[in-house]
Amino acid sequence: MRNICLHLKFDGSHYHGWQVQKNAVSVQQTVQDAIEKVFGDRLDLTGCSRTDAGVHANDYVCCFCTESNIDTTHIMRALNANLPDDIAVTACEEVPMDFHPRYSASGKEYIYRIHNGRFKDPFTRAYTFHYPKPLDVMRLNETAQAFCGKHDFAAFCSIKAASRHRPDETEDTVRTIYLAEVTRNGDEVVYRVRGDGFLYNMVRIMVGTLLFSNGGKLTYEGLSEIIRSKDRLKAGPTAPAHGLFLNKVFYNETVFKP
Amino acid sequence: MRNICLHLKFDGSHYHGWQVQKNAVSVQQTVQDAIEKVFGDRLDLTGCSRTDAGVHANDYVCCFCTESNIDTTHIMRALNANLPDDIAVTACEEVPMDFHPRYSASGKEYIYRIHNGRFKDPFTRAYTFHYPKPLDVMRLNETAQAFCGKHDFAAFCSIKAASRHRPDETEDTVRTIYLAEVTRNGDEVVYRVRGDGFLYNMVRIMVGTLLFSNGGKLTYEGLSEIIRSKDRLKAGPTAPAHGLFLNKVFYNETVFKP
Repeated sequence: MRNICLHLKFDGSHYHGWQVQKNAVSVQQTVQDAIEKVFGDRLDLTGCSRTDAGVHANDYVCCFCTESNIDTTHIMRALNANLPDDIAVTACEEVPMDFHPRYSASGKEYIYRIHNGRFKDPFTRAYTFHYPKPLDVMRLNETAQAFCGKHDFAAFCSIKAASRHRPDETEDTVRTIYLAEVTRNGDEVVYRVRGDGFLYNMVRIMVGTLLFSNGGKLTYEGLSEIIRSKDRLKAGPTAPAHGLFLNKVFYNETVFKP
Repeated sequence: MRNICLHLKFDGSHYHGWQVQKNAVSVQQTVQDAIEKVFGDRLDLTGCSRTDAGVHANDYVCCFCTESNIDTTHIMRALNANLPDDIAVTACEEVPMDFHPRYSASGKEYIYRIHNGRFKDPFTRAYTFHYPKPLDVMRLNETAQAFCGKHDFAAFCSIKAASRHRPDETEDTVRTIYLAEVTRNGDEVVYRVRGDGFLYNMVRIMVGTLLFSNGGKLTYEGLSEIIRSKDRLKAGPTAPAHGLFLNKVFYNETVFKP
């Protein structure tokens, strides 16, 4: 038996997230369909993370096991030939049988793209959240530093989802953030965050808080207070899915380095 | 009477080019619809250039005349509110009555984007032509220099279209190219070309020739010979529309500067 690891890049616009669902097309199902065409079997595909409907990925990691001895170069080419244009396999390698896309990960990096021009940009509208008012990126970046370190991020976890997925409400909401930065490149403002793990909707709530809490003038101290409150209602709204990209999954200590 | 000049950015994917057509949605018609909503009148909109179906624009220039005294800031905001997300007005100014988007232009710049990765890129697939084989950008750039200068570009003009639009076949096919360059940024290769004017499909045939003529190994001399032949059949195929962007229209001598 071989454990085959795929790296995917996908435009999530037309998918209801990673996970297979009834009555909605998911990325997982679409990749499984391609695998079935190539291998003749419906194989289980394990992903590194759930992603919400509409979220994109620059480097999503998933695995499946097969008895087949097709070489990885051929697997990659065959899968790409059978996938729609909005999902690409960018790498394919055989990994140890005990490698697990989610449990073996030491951390993840997300980016959230904001189009900070006055009007919508026709070319990035599917990949950026349009925020037309001026953004002081230096101040946002200073504020965002409050996310760094080990904190209980209960305030940054969707309440409904948390209770739906964890009916006992004993979920550990402590996470460690290694990097949180806000940078500008022309009209595009990017929030980049790296941590050992993320709660449901956590990155989108972080962005919504940075942009909208305290009339968009949230300070480092203000954000620290919101984190300490552990109260979802103190944090800002959940920013839209289509600006969010799973950018990188880390499988060793490199997650700690900026 | 005022002459109002609009600068547009548009994703041409879902349009049959600029020009109003029967049974197909055009950019011109879509902008005229927005103007009609704002001004209450169907006003003539004059563009700087025809563009083919699927071609994009980073800076398309067009004009309309109105008796209304709405200020340009308001016009821009109102038009953007009435345009679909794939067309944006990026600037709006009042210009002299004798300004004409096409006849006043001294030149244009197009870019053609090529995705030169092994597999399709989910995020740029609507804006790049996918060419998976390795490209020697230095050599392509050297070859492209043969386009520069004043030449008869009859070999780089679609035959059918030329005879359809100009039944007398006396069209002047002499154009001056000021800049032709091929550069790489990661997996993306960009052909940038600036000239005093362009024939029908000229940029796309230039790209098709650079990529496919002589098995992709066309030299400066080989390209010069194709230009001198004035024979469309000696040039390469017409590259697909979706990689092409009208990048800039020049209205003064700045076109000459690289």
